[in-house]
Amino acid sequence: MNFETQYNQKKEWVESNLESFLPTLDVKSQTLYDAMLYSLNAGGKRIRPILLLATNEFCGGDTENAMPFACAIEYIHTYSLIHDDLPAMDDDDYRRGKPSNHKIYGEAAAILAGDGLLNSAMEMICHDIYHHMGDFKNIKNKILAAREIFTASGCKGMIGGQMADIEAEGKRVSKEHLEYIHMNKTTALIMASVRAGAFLGGAGEALLKNLTLFSKNIGLAFQITDDILDICGDEKLLGKSLGSDIKHEKTTYPSLYGIEASKEKVKALHEESYQILDRYEGTDFLKALLKRLMDRGF
Amino acid sequence: MNFETQYNQKKEWVESNLESFLPTLDVKSQTLYDAMLYSLNAGGKRIRPILLLATNEFCGGDTENAMPFACAIEYIHTYSLIHDDLPAMDDDDYRRGKPSNHKIYGEAAAILAGDGLLNSAMEMICHDIYHHMGDFKNIKNKILAAREIFTASGCKGMIGGQMADIEAEGKRVSKEHLEYIHMNKTTALIMASVRAGAFLGGAGEALLKNLTLFSKNIGLAFQITDDILDICGDEKLLGKSLGSDIKHEKTTYPSLYGIEASKEKVKALHEESYQILDRYEGTDFLKALLKRLMDRGF
Repeated sequence: MNFETQYNQKKEWVESNLESFLPTLDVKSQTLYDAMLYSLNAGGKRIRPILLLATNEFCGGDTENAMPFACAIEYIHTYSLIHDDLPAMDDDDYRRGKPSNHKIYGEAAAILAGDGLLNSAMEMICHDIYHHMGDFKNIKNKILAAREIFTASGCKGMIGGQMADIEAEGKRVSKEHLEYIHMNKTTALIMASVRAGAFLGGAGEALLKNLTLFSKNIGLAFQITDDILDICGDEKLLGKSLGSDIKHEKTTYPSLYGIEASKEKVKALHEESYQILDRYEGTDFLKALLKRLMDRGF
Repeated sequence: MNFETQYNQKKEWVESNLESFLPTLDVKSQTLYDAMLYSLNAGGKRIRPILLLATNEFCGGDTENAMPFACAIEYIHTYSLIHDDLPAMDDDDYRRGKPSNHKIYGEAAAILAGDGLLNSAMEMICHDIYHHMGDFKNIKNKILAAREIFTASGCKGMIGGQMADIEAEGKRVSKEHLEYIHMNKTTALIMASVRAGAFLGGAGEALLKNLTLFSKNIGLAFQITDDILDICGDEKLLGKSLGSDIKHEKTTYPSLYGIEASKEKVKALHEESYQILDRYEGTDFLKALLKRLMDRGF
């Protein structure tokens, strides 16, 4: 099976589960359900859940067993986008070529839909762990994966990075400050996708260490690529308004180091990630996924 | 030890742990920490964590073992207040006699502080479960308690109730609709406080069933009391602006049934709760707590 087919198969599997894990709601809170589903179904590459599933498989884990965690991480990513787009935050009217959540459902419902997705991620994992109570080794791996995900999505990860990003608006920040933002705002959740997959697949310490470096590199490369595309990407292709960093006077990797140096950095990070994967058998899918991440249009 | 002393002891214990469980943050996201701490320290009766701890103790559980869950439920309650007060939601400038979170830290930080508290609740519980991995029976109870809490705080609980409440604004809703709002918006988390305490304390099925009814009654009574106080309470004593339900044209228990019938309903619910407790030894603290809840100033 070629990469494209494998990727789409995983993507479709994730997407069919995203909806099935949502709580069924009474008609009295139907808007909440609609708002959550709208953003979950708004497309996207599903990179985080696919990274989780692919790492889990590579480490020898079962895909169905990892699915609630893959969906949880997509719920978390989606909630963060809904809240980021709010007028009080980035004030973005479009996301993935469609009106942002609050443009359709209003701000109150968008805030609650974000809260609801984060809470549903936790709920889903609590239910999943509960249903595997008899299988102690599996439970242990699941608890490690859950801890990994919710630490990365929290104050010492994504939320803290988002706060630091807001605090930095309109200021010229240091390289160290920018790295802190990148490490937490974007990279933490990408690293958690890979590390949670590794825990679920039962990876040993040495492998976990290598996969951690692999995921840190792709996380940083991912953020720098986003910043490059915000300057010189194709608005139609990307389905979102560009130039948002300049509008918000944000310090970015390109604004500190220049476009060319940023492109070189992305290549170097990917190269190192490739070398890590190259030490192992069975990494063809992950290697092709890495190549796909590199080819995001610049 | 009299009730007052026991209550304050539990309250202080919870309050000292609320801060210690918060993640230590880098100075770059310091505002997030300050905003979370501001609302956590804004006072409040700490009824939910005290209910959890008292139920856990009554069922024979250890208090220290239950503390992360007690704090988690207070984090969740606090996050819900921060998001409820936002301009897009209830637009309240004061909470517990102090300016609301967004009036001090701005809307973006208030949204993130709410997200951060909800996430920290889950993080704290993941860490706690991880650290008790060797103790299978305890882990099982903790997973049951976690599932209880995050189901109650989610879309089929608090968040769904909040959505239904917003949807009902400016409309005259049915009795059934109002009951749905009350059951989910407020009662679900109060029930979860008691039921999670019962799970942590290892309660059997019959006891759990009775405590469930007890907690349902006090949850509904609590919400109806809030609605009565919003009409005829003492603004200074309660430390919040009153008349908010009328301003938002909300259907409430008093607006559907009248003030007197509402007061009678509260009394009847408390009476039934008292009778449930009266069947058991060792419920003196819970009985006194129930009396305290009844005496909220009308």
